[in-house]
Amino acid sequence: MARASLREQIVDAAYEQFHQHGYHGCGVKLITDSAGVPKGSFYNHFESKEALALVVMERYGDTRRVPDLVNRDAAEPLARLRAHFEFLASDIEKHGYRRGCVFGNFANEAADHSPVIRAGLVAAFDSWSEAVVSAIREAQADGSITSTQDPEVLGRFLVNAWEGAIVGERAAKDGSSFAAFFAVAFDTLLR
Amino acid sequence: MARASLREQIVDAAYEQFHQHGYHGCGVKLITDSAGVPKGSFYNHFESKEALALVVMERYGDTRRVPDLVNRDAAEPLARLRAHFEFLASDIEKHGYRRGCVFGNFANEAADHSPVIRAGLVAAFDSWSEAVVSAIREAQADGSITSTQDPEVLGRFLVNAWEGAIVGERAAKDGSSFAAFFAVAFDTLLR
Repeated sequence: MARASLREQIVDAAYEQFHQHGYHGCGVKLITDSAGVPKGSFYNHFESKEALALVVMERYGDTRRVPDLVNRDAAEPLARLRAHFEFLASDIEKHGYRRGCVFGNFANEAADHSPVIRAGLVAAFDSWSEAVVSAIREAQADGSITSTQDPEVLGRFLVNAWEGAIVGERAAKDGSSFAAFFAVAFDTLLR
Repeated sequence: MARASLREQIVDAAYEQFHQHGYHGCGVKLITDSAGVPKGSFYNHFESKEALALVVMERYGDTRRVPDLVNRDAAEPLARLRAHFEFLASDIEKHGYRRGCVFGNFANEAADHSPVIRAGLVAAFDSWSEAVVSAIREAQADGSITSTQDPEVLGRFLVNAWEGAIVGERAAKDGSSFAAFFAVAFDTLLR
C-alpha cells in the first residue's frame, strides 16, 4: 500500500517535471526531490529513468482523449476531430503555451538515443494517427468530407501538423500557429 | 587571428553537439572538449551558452536555403517551394532521421526558459514563413495555385507542418511522415 503510493508520487512528479524540463533537463534527483521521496527509493520502483519515461508517456496518452475520436455515439466524425484538437489546444493555451506535448518533447530529445523510448513513441503516434484516420474514413463514408486524400496519409499528416503547430507556439506563444492549424485543417483539408 | 579561429572551433563544435544532443543535453564542457579547446577559453568568446546558441541558430538558418524561395530567377514559385522542402528532407534523411531541426529542438527545449533564445526563434520562424508566404503569393498571382487560402496562414501552417513531420520522423525514421507532408502539401494545399 505504502509502496504503491510512493510509486505514484514518483510518477506524478515525473509527469510534471518531464513536461516542464524535458527529458534531459530532468534527472532522477529532480524527480525524487519534487516527489518528496528519497532518491534511493527510485530504483525500488523503476529500473531506469527510461522505464519511468515510458510510464509517463502512457499516462499522458491516457489524458489525450484519443478514444473519443472513434466514439460513434458522441458526435459526427468531423465534430469529434475538431473537439479533439480543440481540447489539445486548450490544454496548451491554459499553460501559457509552455510545456508542449510529451510525445513531441521526447521525440525531439530522446528518440535518437533511447530505442525503448523511440518504440514507445512509434506506438503512441501510430495509435493516435489510427484514431484520426478512422474518423476521417467515417467522414468520407458519410459524405461529410468530399476530400479523396488517402485517409492514412491525411491522418498521419494532421497528427504531425499538430505537433508542428505546438513547435510554433513554443516560440511565438500567441495562438497564431494553432489558428493556422484549425483554418487549414478544417477549412481546406477536412472538407 | 588565433582568437578568431578558436571562436570558430567553438561554434563548429557547438553546431554539431547542439544538433546531436539538444540544448540541455550539451554543456559548455562537452562543447569545448569536442572543439579541443580549454573550457576556460569559452568565456573569452561568448558571454553564455545562450549567446552561443544564438550564433548556432543564425549559422543553421544560413544553411536552410531560405533566400532560394524568393529568387524569381531560379524557377517557378511552386518548383522553388518543392525544392526547398526536398532539400530540408534530404538533409535529415542523410543523417538517418536523427538530429532534426535546430529551431524545432530549441523551441521544444529552451524557448520556455530563455527569452533570448525564444526571441531568436520567433525571428527565425517569421523570416522563414515570410519567404514561404512570398512564394505562395507569387504562385497565386501567376495562377499556378488556385487555392484561395490566406497565404500568411498557409505559409505559417506549412512551416509548422514541416517541423511536425520532423517530429514524426524522429520517432519512426522511415520516411512516412515526410511522404505524407509532400503528398498533402503539394497534391492538395498548393494546388
